[in-house]
Amino acid sequence: MQVIATIPELRAAIKQSQTAHETIGFVPTMGYLHEGHLSLIRRARQENDMVVVSIFVNPTQFAPHEDLATYPRDHERDLALLHTASADIVFLPAVEELYPSGYTTYVQVEGSISATLCGVSRPTFFRGVATIVTKLFHIVTPQRAYFGQKDAQQAAVIKKMIRDLNFDIDIVICPTVREKDGLAMSSRNTYLTPTQRAQAVGISQALFEARALIENGEHRASHIRQSIETRIAAIDDAVIDYVSIVDATTLADVETLSGETLIAAAVKVGKTRLIDNIQVQISGSI
Amino acid sequence: MQVIATIPELRAAIKQSQTAHETIGFVPTMGYLHEGHLSLIRRARQENDMVVVSIFVNPTQFAPHEDLATYPRDHERDLALLHTASADIVFLPAVEELYPSGYTTYVQVEGSISATLCGVSRPTFFRGVATIVTKLFHIVTPQRAYFGQKDAQQAAVIKKMIRDLNFDIDIVICPTVREKDGLAMSSRNTYLTPTQRAQAVGISQALFEARALIENGEHRASHIRQSIETRIAAIDDAVIDYVSIVDATTLADVETLSGETLIAAAVKVGKTRLIDNIQVQISGSI
Repeated sequence: MQVIATIPELRAAIKQSQTAHETIGFVPTMGYLHEGHLSLIRRARQENDMVVVSIFVNPTQFAPHEDLATYPRDHERDLALLHTASADIVFLPAVEELYPSGYTTYVQVEGSISATLCGVSRPTFFRGVATIVTKLFHIVTPQRAYFGQKDAQQAAVIKKMIRDLNFDIDIVICPTVREKDGLAMSSRNTYLTPTQRAQAVGISQALFEARALIENGEHRASHIRQSIETRIAAIDDAVIDYVSIVDATTLADVETLSGETLIAAAVKVGKTRLIDNIQVQISGSI
Repeated sequence: MQVIATIPELRAAIKQSQTAHETIGFVPTMGYLHEGHLSLIRRARQENDMVVVSIFVNPTQFAPHEDLATYPRDHERDLALLHTASADIVFLPAVEELYPSGYTTYVQVEGSISATLCGVSRPTFFRGVATIVTKLFHIVTPQRAYFGQKDAQQAAVIKKMIRDLNFDIDIVICPTVREKDGLAMSSRNTYLTPTQRAQAVGISQALFEARALIENGEHRASHIRQSIETRIAAIDDAVIDYVSIVDATTLADVETLSGETLIAAAVKVGKTRLIDNIQVQISGSI
């Protein structure tokens, strides 16, 4: 496994595999890896000749009041996990390598897909995500890139960016990986106190109860949303940012569930903002 | 020479040359080709195995009040010229091919480099340029792309975008091609009446006189600018948009010329907006 810090060295390593017509699978991460990331890397390993993983806590997707400085980092542990997962190349650049002095270019997926859900409380987040993903795609030149369904809006925004900007890259979205009790894995779970951690499971439980409701025939978004909100409101120390029921591709609100529907929630537990979602496929009409 | 209208067909044609490890030179144009475009194509022909030329009047770089609808078009003549110039592939897409319904993603090179000079009267122009160039680069995947020095600010913005977004493409800027009397070639020259055409030469003459001044030791930007403005003001029917003396890379205003300096003018002659520039290299200090 090669660990590379600079763009020219990474390009040189990539060029070798391109000359050999090898396919490249790419997993961009912010590090502090958990089983969710590892599931993406295993999938990339199955589907490509070469697997490139980046670890970069991207400053342009954090607002000034957010947790850029305290975002958890543990490169030694990450590299050990990536070695075990048989990654070929780990790209671990300094901030200045990707955002040198005088940097001013940004990619923005405009419209409601970026402005809804997390975009309401994090208005510049997806601009930062689209920009860093564009940069990394240009450097790594993958055939396939892997993202988690847990970040459902990010997945939708990146898929739209790929279509709009004509990137020739397959975006592969992998299922959310959960702790045994159902909590969606997240590097930010480490912020939770033991009490908060025990209570945070209420978020996934609320979504699973919603799925049961839907499977029993409830297709009215307002009723489903109310069920989720009531369940989450029962968590001590929790403040709902949003509970939204939207079309899975456009992220437009729906009143009655139909087709591929995303049910997504963002909740602050103490100072920690957690997100989770489920996706349901409603076939036929009521 | 292949003439291709759709992205999948173009990708298929490009893939063949990539498999053969051929280099691709790309010349993006808005058509209505003149000797300036042809000089780019000849240069691309010398330096690459395959030459791709696009003809696309890009709507996102026109403001609503500008000349999108009336921009001159003559595909038959363009294709004959491209055949003579030995282009391999001409990409001639419909608007919907590049901007399908629901399109919302834009690339913006922020800061003064886009906001100064033409950016003052055309505030969304370079956002449109950066977006279409990004899309075409993703589709054509060239090693080298060719632009004219006549569009000096466009060249500076694209070079900055290439650096900021880590495109692995060499940007080649070719000299402005002029009519015998000195007028910079432009598809928009066709808008000029014979009288306006005769007078428009005053723009390039003003720039050439400025160069003579500089060669005689004048390095004060204000004096050089005044000389240019006085000469252009003598043209009937001409209204100066700007006369600017700036650093050739950052496009920041300079007071005293030093290093690589761009002297650029935009002038409305009747209803036709023309741009022209010269670049001077000042060596040593005063």
